[in-house]
Order: sequence, then C-alpha cells, then structure tokens
Amino acid sequence: MCTVGVIGLGLIGGSMAIDLKRRGFASRVIGVEQDSIAAEAAKTIGLVDDVVSYEDCIGQADIIVVAVPVGTAVKMVPEILNKIGPDTIVIDVCSTKSQICHATQYHPRRGQFVSTHPMAGTEYSGPWAAQPGLFDGRACIFANTEESSPKAVKRIEELYGVLNMRPTYMNADQHDVHTAYVSHISHVTSFALALTVLDKEKDEKHIFDLASGGFSSTVRLAKSSADMWVPILTQNHDNVLHVMDTYIEKMLQFRDAVFNYDQERIRELIVEANRIKKILR
Amino acid sequence: MCTVGVIGLGLIGGSMAIDLKRRGFASRVIGVEQDSIAAEAAKTIGLVDDVVSYEDCIGQADIIVVAVPVGTAVKMVPEILNKIGPDTIVIDVCSTKSQICHATQYHPRRGQFVSTHPMAGTEYSGPWAAQPGLFDGRACIFANTEESSPKAVKRIEELYGVLNMRPTYMNADQHDVHTAYVSHISHVTSFALALTVLDKEKDEKHIFDLASGGFSSTVRLAKSSADMWVPILTQNHDNVLHVMDTYIEKMLQFRDAVFNYDQERIRELIVEANRIKKILR
Repeated sequence: MCTVGVIGLGLIGGSMAIDLKRRGFASRVIGVEQDSIAAEAAKTIGLVDDVVSYEDCIGQADIIVVAVPVGTAVKMVPEILNKIGPDTIVIDVCSTKSQICHATQYHPRRGQFVSTHPMAGTEYSGPWAAQPGLFDGRACIFANTEESSPKAVKRIEELYGVLNMRPTYMNADQHDVHTAYVSHISHVTSFALALTVLDKEKDEKHIFDLASGGFSSTVRLAKSSADMWVPILTQNHDNVLHVMDTYIEKMLQFRDAVFNYDQERIRELIVEANRIKKILR
Repeated sequence: MCTVGVIGLGLIGGSMAIDLKRRGFASRVIGVEQDSIAAEAAKTIGLVDDVVSYEDCIGQADIIVVAVPVGTAVKMVPEILNKIGPDTIVIDVCSTKSQICHATQYHPRRGQFVSTHPMAGTEYSGPWAAQPGLFDGRACIFANTEESSPKAVKRIEELYGVLNMRPTYMNADQHDVHTAYVSHISHVTSFALALTVLDKEKDEKHIFDLASGGFSSTVRLAKSSADMWVPILTQNHDNVLHVMDTYIEKMLQFRDAVFNYDQERIRELIVEANRIKKILR
C-alpha cells in the first residue's frame, strides 16, 4: 500500500488513478492538474483523493506517475528526480521513449526512474475521458529497464500487474520505431482523412448521414488532441517521417493502379494488404 | 408476404436473407450462390430456405435481390429484367450506383428495378460473415427513384423499413461522389496502411503485440475482399481518383510540416482535422 501521485489528470493519468485506487494498489491517490477546469472536473468526478500542488505531490507520493504530453515530460522528469527522496519511484507513460530516456540517462537518480508506455487509450482526452479498465489486457512497454534499479522495475511491474497489462521490454529507440508503425502513422492517416473529407464534403449532413462504420473507424483517431500529438510527431521525427514516406509510396502505387484501371495490380495490392488478417483478428 | 430471392449469399445478401425471413417480410427466402463451398455453408448455417439455381430463383421470387460484386451486377440486372414477369421487382445493393443505373436506364422494364445501397457492412465477407441486425439504424440510399415505378419503390421502402434502415434519396452520380469520400477512400487508406506496416514490420509478433486499439481500427478495413473492391475502385474511377489526389495532397502537407519540425503548422492541421468531432460522435 502506498501513495500514488499522478501528474496530469487526463485520459491516461485519470484512468490509472481510478484503477490503482479501486484495485487496492494505492491507499491514497493524489493528483496534480494545471488546467483549473480539468482540476475541478477531476475532483468532481472523484478521480483522486486530493488534487494537490506539484510540490506537495513530489513531497508526499511514493510513486509519481508523470502523465503529461511528452514535450513537458522530458523537462519534468529530471526536475522531479532532483527533488525526491531515495525511496520514491518516478514513471512516465509517454508515447515516445528515446528523448525522455536520453534526457535522464546520466541523472544520478536514473535508477529511480522507470520509463513505460502503457499501450491503451481512446481518441478522447481530459479527466472526463478517464475510465476504469482502460488498460486491461493491453501491452505495456518498459523501455531501457537496465538503466533503472531492479527494485524500482519490480515495483512498477506490480503496478502494471494490477492494471492487468502484459509487460514487454525493449530499447527506447526500438520502441520509437515500432510505435511509429503501429500507432503514430495511424493517427496521421486519420488526420489526413478527416482533412480530405472536411475539405470536400461541405454538406456536413451528408458526412453524418452516409458515414458507415468503416469511415467512422478509420477516421476516429482524427479526434485526438493536438497537445498530445504535436510533441509525439516532432519528437519521433525521423521514424515518423520514414513511415510517412513509405506510406505515401504505397498510396501512390495504389493511385497509379486506379489511374490506369489496372484491375490486376489493384487486386494484387489488396490481396497483399489482406495479410493483416492473419496477424490482427 | 412474398418469396424473396437473394443472388449472392455473402455478407450483405446473407444478412438480408436472415432478417427478411425472421422479421416476417418474406414467407420464403431462396438463394443463389455460385461458389459451391459458400453455397454449402449457406445451407448449413440456414441463411435461406433453399439454395436454388439462378433460373429457378428468377422464376419463383417476387423480389430479387442482386447482391453480387458490382462488376457482375451491371451485366446481371438487365439480364434478369429481360426474364421476369410484370409483378417481379429487382433490386441491387451495390456500393457504386452510376454504372448500374446507366446500364439499365433505357431498359423497357426499368420501372421494375430499384437501385439501392444499404450502407452497412463489416470487413468480413462470405455467408459466414452474415449476421442478424446488420442494417438496423443505418442509412439506405435509393438512387434515381424517378426511373422506377412508384409501386416498386414503395414495396422496397417497406423491405428496408423491416430492416430498420433510414431511406435517403439521391441521384446515382451524386451517390458515387459522396461514397468516394465517406467510404471508398477509407478502404484505400486502410489498404495502404496495412501495406506500409507489413512491408516494414518484418516481425509479426510486434505488430500483434503492440497494435493498440487505434491501429486495429484504422487498419481493419484492409481485411476487405478484393472481389468486392476491385470493381468498386474501377467503376468509381474518377471520383475515387479525385479523392485520392486530395488525400495525397493533405498527406504531403502533413509530411512537410513534420519534415520542417513546424509545430505550429502540425497543430493547425490537427485542430482542423478535429472538426470531425462535431460531425461524428
């Protein structure tokens, strides 16, 4: 039993707060939220036992969860490591791992920091998007665990165990390559799809009326927040750019096949794409 | 009460067969399926009362539902109109409407044909993908109804009423523009996404392991069948090409913003894309 401090009471931070308290991992959960409306909402919803100041959170928590956009987290984690006692553990839950791991690499208290990426979420954000059970059954990536103390890693494995996540261990750079493919590019393609449709379908009623399940599911990530995604796309710049270029190349192959009425080539591309069926059910 | 004949016992035809019988619109549902394995499966599952020959179906059904890929339907509908008696009604359920409406425009029995597009489906195909309730609450487009007899239109409105669909009326050409935006392009972006990931992530375990809900939902349409999509993309050639070009342009704008680390521009594009929130909840 311990006090967990969550900095950033959005979708991820808020959802962790709910389940860590409800499932008995934390005896007390305190939260920090700089946006005053979100802070009030978090109190009203009852996501945490108390909304406290940044300093009080650092002073009181045994485990500090940094759940803010990755641009802020890169500066915040070293700052927190400067202030904590020898038994406090800090984790981040950001979607890119290289930069935050590089920023903390030589910190004297690096051992007390565990860098993680719980791969769960929805397209919504803010405390009102937090929900119990969000993490159940999903993968949680632990990055560069050899730089953390074994004791800290073990404790954080317990934390994610309570959230029913499957731990996966990898190098931070490797993480950023994989997530560029299986997460970041999906967001970019959804944003581009939304922009295309909004640009051309001036009559919003038609979008609403005709959008079948297919369109809704491919475009839903386009609801994702700019605060979260601007830093992800710039921090994971090289990988995201590489994947975007491959994607644009595939799109142009498809475009040429359609342009040429080349039914054989279109079929070939679709059949090749269908292989995803064997991997994702 | 009537006999409904369904030609093509796949996802759409099979799902219509189930609910038209179960909800009492049809006293008897007969089906035609040229693929012998699918025909056996449809019998085993019990999608229809009888699997019959093409000729028997045309001879016995009061309403004939043509639920085959659109390339085949364009030839089949005029052929069926040649053979039916004066009280039989024929409908198609294809995803493109211009070509089939043009192909039947001057047919002496054009009045007995109602061209529809029930906008429902999943990424799966075949009789084993058919399911009750597939159409409930979705939109059904009626194309060029002024070319059908009012009596035939009324009867088919009853049919889709039983399936709980909301009728929407539009011109066939207009339909093909809208669906290029809200359906066809989504499939192309999913195919391209699957191709990108399959090309680069040689380690399939990582795709499976790391794919969060976001990736699964943007890529799920890439499971869609080539038999259905090759003719859609070639028949709706001009519209699809136009939308693909707009999409590629948006993607390149995004790529340039990422390439230049231009956070302001990335934010602008995301915030613009976010407008889709107000239209699709």
